[in-house]
Amino acid sequence: MKNFSFKNPTQILFGEGQIAEIANVIPADARVMLIYGGGSIKGNGVYGQIQTALGDRIVTEFAGVEANPEFTTLCRAADKAREHNVTYLLAAGGGSVIDGTKFIAAAACFEGDPWEIMLKGGRNIEQALPFGSVLTLPATGSEMNSGSVVNRSEIKAKLPFGSPLCYPQFSVLDPTTTYTLPTRQIINGVVDPFVHVVEQYLTYPVGADLQDRMAEAVLSSLIATGPKALEFRDNYEYRANLMWCATMALNGLIGCGVPQDWSTHMIGHELTALYGLDHAQTLAVVLPANLRIRKADKREKLLQYAERVWGITTGTEDERIEQGIVATEQFFQKVGAPTRLRDYQLGDEVIGTIIKQLESHQMVKLGEKRDVTPEVSTAILRAAL
Amino acid sequence: MKNFSFKNPTQILFGEGQIAEIANVIPADARVMLIYGGGSIKGNGVYGQIQTALGDRIVTEFAGVEANPEFTTLCRAADKAREHNVTYLLAAGGGSVIDGTKFIAAAACFEGDPWEIMLKGGRNIEQALPFGSVLTLPATGSEMNSGSVVNRSEIKAKLPFGSPLCYPQFSVLDPTTTYTLPTRQIINGVVDPFVHVVEQYLTYPVGADLQDRMAEAVLSSLIATGPKALEFRDNYEYRANLMWCATMALNGLIGCGVPQDWSTHMIGHELTALYGLDHAQTLAVVLPANLRIRKADKREKLLQYAERVWGITTGTEDERIEQGIVATEQFFQKVGAPTRLRDYQLGDEVIGTIIKQLESHQMVKLGEKRDVTPEVSTAILRAAL
Repeated sequence: MKNFSFKNPTQILFGEGQIAEIANVIPADARVMLIYGGGSIKGNGVYGQIQTALGDRIVTEFAGVEANPEFTTLCRAADKAREHNVTYLLAAGGGSVIDGTKFIAAAACFEGDPWEIMLKGGRNIEQALPFGSVLTLPATGSEMNSGSVVNRSEIKAKLPFGSPLCYPQFSVLDPTTTYTLPTRQIINGVVDPFVHVVEQYLTYPVGADLQDRMAEAVLSSLIATGPKALEFRDNYEYRANLMWCATMALNGLIGCGVPQDWSTHMIGHELTALYGLDHAQTLAVVLPANLRIRKADKREKLLQYAERVWGITTGTEDERIEQGIVATEQFFQKVGAPTRLRDYQLGDEVIGTIIKQLESHQMVKLGEKRDVTPEVSTAILRAAL
Repeated sequence: MKNFSFKNPTQILFGEGQIAEIANVIPADARVMLIYGGGSIKGNGVYGQIQTALGDRIVTEFAGVEANPEFTTLCRAADKAREHNVTYLLAAGGGSVIDGTKFIAAAACFEGDPWEIMLKGGRNIEQALPFGSVLTLPATGSEMNSGSVVNRSEIKAKLPFGSPLCYPQFSVLDPTTTYTLPTRQIINGVVDPFVHVVEQYLTYPVGADLQDRMAEAVLSSLIATGPKALEFRDNYEYRANLMWCATMALNGLIGCGVPQDWSTHMIGHELTALYGLDHAQTLAVVLPANLRIRKADKREKLLQYAERVWGITTGTEDERIEQGIVATEQFFQKVGAPTRLRDYQLGDEVIGTIIKQLESHQMVKLGEKRDVTPEVSTAILRAAL
């Protein structure tokens, strides 16, 4: 096990009706900016519950944060927060809105060009507005971590940043808010957490027995309940479990003391920035190909994954590894996430463009051993055609 | 899944050499009181590493916190902290020292008789000194939670308290500090976390699939690595895993949104207070009997436990339940924790005394359904003879 430091100060308020608790966790004298996306929170009752909980606090609103939140949009929000002397941000939505709110929290306190935050990956954040979230779309885990991904379409960039100052102070997870989500979003909510776990688990063994078993617990739970959460749209139990899996997949805990990969995410970000695939769609495409191309390096963990997560115990080692990867593909397909570039009408003509973008974003030494060079990424993309 | 609120702000500094990090997490101008037990930290190098890390901070020491920390000892420590205007406490030791430090942190700021803290279970704590810990004896999980148990021998009382103000700000977990522990303490370090998990897991199903699987992950990891941690006393990997299992068993996470039992602990506390058994020894004695007596109420989870944790899939349901309990007993015995009262020269003459103590501490409605009355506790103790 590698040395680690772990601290996660976010308070989780979980369950039906917990939006009302906002009244107790945002300071009574806060000047709040409520940040949301396309307005679905007005259709599903969340907006009204938030208004009630905020009571007579002064509230400014900023609507229109996009999926894959746009840098320019977020800069406008930060300007608005400054203009209104906002002291507390409240995000209501999914990972995009919460990621965006993290950037707004930092940018509102930042001197100079806020793009510098992205270029430094957040290491230059010295101050941020406090914020909380009401999660309505479980998937990214942003509700209980300090990371964020921001898009800048004009230069086709989608980049991550993070800071210890960017943990939500609280996040409300009410599973009933997911009942009205489109199926596509629930698909993302199964695939994205699954791949988050895999990026922290499927590397090489370091004797971290508990972290391995906890990662396997999240994967097994997503396999057991993900398809049911899709089938039964207003089943509290399945939606609650999906929501908690998504949070636990990326709150730092299962990644303590183990190597981490994240190459699937970095390649996937370019696919989103260039061709508009949903984040989870990119993961479903890139992950199986990535595992196949790098199976020699990941051999021991792939065997463990095949056995413990998928119950595969027969065949040669190579056969078991391939069966585990096939099971992963079939799971993604079963929940509605195609696993090939061709399923999105993308062919080998896109590979050069994607590699150029990776290079321009310094994504040239990816993976747990920093050996996923542009050549390896090319091979992965070819295997994903 | 039940509604829950979860927040755990403790920073974990995990790994060899991490004691040096104390220099960065205790304020440079803090007046520190270093709290420890019998002085084993002076023999194993921990004391020296702490001194180096504390540098030129003003340090007062309080040595002599006992196993099952004594109320009167802790009150003396609180007095000393006040006399020296201490601003930060640093516990170095196991669960007893850290539990004791939590009480000292609260008592040093408490107006009135500090026994009131125990009588109110900590609900009257309005202020506490900040504190951190260097864990040298993994078992209780106190290093990453806000609970504590304090002993008062003069009245044969061992009572719990807790407060959100009693989370350690940080805890250093360096597995190499466990290399010099006596075997008995490592036995406790396997059994205590195991039963902590069982108290939060073996109740009745509430559809908390992920919490169940995470609890099973900790149990399976203790089963896989606990005996090896005992066999190989300076194997970093096994000791590291044992240490992290102990922390994860009781940092609140696996207990989120599920019913909890804790009757084994409450009955066990009386055994320690009256007859001096180690905490973990009491658990090894009480748990199997408790599961047998209450197997009707715990039926579904006992079947799940037998199958998922012990791989028991054949036989009638009753047989599988009994096999799971037998496997638990055999595991405790294998790691060196006897599972019967007679193993400690205690016979049925003690049962009446234990029940009287439970009654005098209002422990008359224990368990996840509050139905473990003195009559049920009597049956459990009889089954443990």
